[in-house]
Amino acid sequence: MFESAELGHKIGKRRYDEEAPQIREALLDAQFELAQSKAFPVILLIGGVDGAGKGETANTLNAWMDPRHIRTNAMGEATDEERERPPMWRFWRALPPKGTIGIFFGSWYTAPIIDRVAGRTKNAELEKSVQEIQRFEKMLADEGALILKFWFHLSKKDQKIRLKSLEKDPEQRWRVTHTDWERFKLYDKFRRVSEQTLRQTGTAYAPWLVVEGGDARYRNITVGKAILDALRKRLRAHRKRPEVIQPAPLPVVDNLHLLNTLDLGVKRARKKYKEDLKKYEGQLNLLTRDPRFRNKSLVVLFEGNDAAGKGGAIRRVTAALDARFYHIIPVAAPTDEERAQPYLWRFWRHLPRLGHVAIFDRSWYGRVLVERVQELCPPSDWLRAYSEINDFEDEMTRHNILLVKFWLAISPEVQMKRFKEREATGFKRFKLTPEDWRNRKRWDDYVRAVCDMVDRTSNEIAPWTIVEANDKYYARIKVLKTICDRLERAF
Amino acid sequence: MFESAELGHKIGKRRYDEEAPQIREALLDAQFELAQSKAFPVILLIGGVDGAGKGETANTLNAWMDPRHIRTNAMGEATDEERERPPMWRFWRALPPKGTIGIFFGSWYTAPIIDRVAGRTKNAELEKSVQEIQRFEKMLADEGALILKFWFHLSKKDQKIRLKSLEKDPEQRWRVTHTDWERFKLYDKFRRVSEQTLRQTGTAYAPWLVVEGGDARYRNITVGKAILDALRKRLRAHRKRPEVIQPAPLPVVDNLHLLNTLDLGVKRARKKYKEDLKKYEGQLNLLTRDPRFRNKSLVVLFEGNDAAGKGGAIRRVTAALDARFYHIIPVAAPTDEERAQPYLWRFWRHLPRLGHVAIFDRSWYGRVLVERVQELCPPSDWLRAYSEINDFEDEMTRHNILLVKFWLAISPEVQMKRFKEREATGFKRFKLTPEDWRNRKRWDDYVRAVCDMVDRTSNEIAPWTIVEANDKYYARIKVLKTICDRLERAF
Repeated sequence: MFESAELGHKIGKRRYDEEAPQIREALLDAQFELAQSKAFPVILLIGGVDGAGKGETANTLNAWMDPRHIRTNAMGEATDEERERPPMWRFWRALPPKGTIGIFFGSWYTAPIIDRVAGRTKNAELEKSVQEIQRFEKMLADEGALILKFWFHLSKKDQKIRLKSLEKDPEQRWRVTHTDWERFKLYDKFRRVSEQTLRQTGTAYAPWLVVEGGDARYRNITVGKAILDALRKRLRAHRKRPEVIQPAPLPVVDNLHLLNTLDLGVKRARKKYKEDLKKYEGQLNLLTRDPRFRNKSLVVLFEGNDAAGKGGAIRRVTAALDARFYHIIPVAAPTDEERAQPYLWRFWRHLPRLGHVAIFDRSWYGRVLVERVQELCPPSDWLRAYSEINDFEDEMTRHNILLVKFWLAISPEVQMKRFKEREATGFKRFKLTPEDWRNRKRWDDYVRAVCDMVDRTSNEIAPWTIVEANDKYYARIKVLKTICDRLERAF
Repeated sequence: MFESAELGHKIGKRRYDEEAPQIREALLDAQFELAQSKAFPVILLIGGVDGAGKGETANTLNAWMDPRHIRTNAMGEATDEERERPPMWRFWRALPPKGTIGIFFGSWYTAPIIDRVAGRTKNAELEKSVQEIQRFEKMLADEGALILKFWFHLSKKDQKIRLKSLEKDPEQRWRVTHTDWERFKLYDKFRRVSEQTLRQTGTAYAPWLVVEGGDARYRNITVGKAILDALRKRLRAHRKRPEVIQPAPLPVVDNLHLLNTLDLGVKRARKKYKEDLKKYEGQLNLLTRDPRFRNKSLVVLFEGNDAAGKGGAIRRVTAALDARFYHIIPVAAPTDEERAQPYLWRFWRHLPRLGHVAIFDRSWYGRVLVERVQELCPPSDWLRAYSEINDFEDEMTRHNILLVKFWLAISPEVQMKRFKEREATGFKRFKLTPEDWRNRKRWDDYVRAVCDMVDRTSNEIAPWTIVEANDKYYARIKVLKTICDRLERAF
């Protein structure tokens, strides 16, 4: 992995003075085209050995290109707002919008490698991180991001020389800290762990580019050219992104599915409902005030047929909560800031802090429901969404977020009855939109989409609860009881 | 101030059961209209005596209305990301977008009142806070926000009774903390300070509504009705927002102004430029690495004629900085999230953390420059912008943000020369937009706008530096030197 980066690459001043300005000009042009077309985001990772010119490279790139469209993210220590969310949250919030370049100085590789080198984790944990990173980068690439990962390398001998010479230079001395020398002691282990990690995460869509770090001119020319080539290629190709082949859903061969095997006739009498409502709202209130909840957070999402009673169910849940600690996210059309980011970005940004509750009124499942059925995105996008969603939910649940997912199911007859009631009352709050009728026409396609969704995204840690919602009383109690049960089991 | 709220207001169950559902229905309707029209944001402040039903009221409002369009902000302790910005930053980031309701539980009043009661501040500081709040709320109102400030009051006797009875109730006991009793000891002082503050900040556009807190039914009906009345009135009126009368700029009576008294002929020879560039970039680099900079941040903004060389000057500044600690904000058309907020929101969100540098390529002065000249906003908006901007910059500078403001001035002849060069090279990076030509036609109006801007927003803490930019070398050095000087003086 590092062999070619220990050969003592060097570039003479004359060649540099000739080539550098050309690369710079060409980079500026490519960057300008990127900014104008807003075609895709560029993600540059900078990692490697200390003293191998990581910081200088970031500065050079900013000097060579138009820094107004570059954001350099020094991922130092996490802030408390970041620590209260899953580890990837801070990277999601720093992702560059389309048309811009994000430089990550320190990245999602830093903690897994450093923790392993320091012996805080075992190989199995590193392997797990590697798999997560692979999926994360796959998602970014599928979303169209251009990803280049630079690894700056120095042989052990060269690193020692470099650190010493930096230390001697009064202008540069600040760059070398005690930690750098501590890490130097671990050089061999660091090399072994990084080599393994790099080997496993170098992919066609997110390659590692190992650069020998000893000579600044060599570094700059190499990195500059690599970015230029990749940018140009991608700019040329960006309209012909190849369709990613993914396994299609199972073919349907009989008429038995999750939804028509439900007993939608279940009911709760008004009196019993009132009692149960009081009981479970009280229980939920106590559970969210429990000291054990302070180190957790709760995400509840509601999906369901139009007019299935999501709003009413949500209000029965929030009635039990303290308004200061919950937040409802009604999922509507994305804003333009959201459209400039990967699909899940708009949900990541709303993840709650510890001790808080986030309630999603519709959710990230829109992609595999309405977007699939109404053909609002190409099949490759919704097909890959299942695994992206599973990864997303996995990260949540591992970070003490309890995730509760509801599908509120009603029969077509009940839906029609409710649509007509809404029309009749003319009660403007329940405006019936053309979209509601359009969705209704695709009832069977929705059934199919719901079944696929449940099959592919229900699992022990984040199961789907299908709620029989023809009777609103029954549905609301089932929702409340489910949340209480899940919270109790989580403590 | 509190007399009417110590009369023992109460509402019987029967009346409540009759009135409450009506208010609720009407509130839902009004809220729906608000959400649909996205006409304005609603800001509800909840403050007052402990135990007077603040939390219950927030919950009731969420239960009565559609909680999906309400965001309740419990402004508890500041996070570290918040502490590294001016105190108002956390409120700005929590402002509700148009069409939604933001409930502030704890607000910009909390710290000034509590600090004064605890004796941490003197009266003079409270007065200053009050003035700042007045201007902040004026700005919100001018931006169209509906502001209602509720103060929940209990007489001293009633507060004691209330705290004791809460303590006895096992369901409610958690609401009463040691702090509550500590504060109770300061009741008289708290009353005095709040009364004074309320009196000074109750305005027509942001009134205080003092509500007796002893009886929940009275509280709910009163608050519900107050919100309903205000919402309805505003919804009816929202298209006829009256023009706010503001002092117009000075009439022009001679031809002497800031810009034509500049000596645009100043020049720097290339050799001297190269030397100075090295010198001042080195100096700036050292200054931003100085340990004393870690508790400060730097905001540099660039305004100027089109083709005045802002981009080039910015690149000479960033060349001296570590890419990990600066961020350039190119100010472009606002995103839709930004358009749903008060004008300055889009700049507040980019304020840097401590030890960081933010460089604005064009800035909040757009409102009094291009928006004024091209008539993109009504005169009342740009006229009030001067004082809003002064307040904004005042908050920055008081929070250890060093603010450096540049106007890059060129002559019309030099601009024409540069426009033509850009056209001739056809170099796509320097696309000449129709807007550039449009602005040029209004040269005299711009001169007028710039002079007004400098007169009204230049002051000791945030002075404008007018840079003679016909000669790019001269301009760049002046920019660098100014930043260095300001930093040095700040240490």
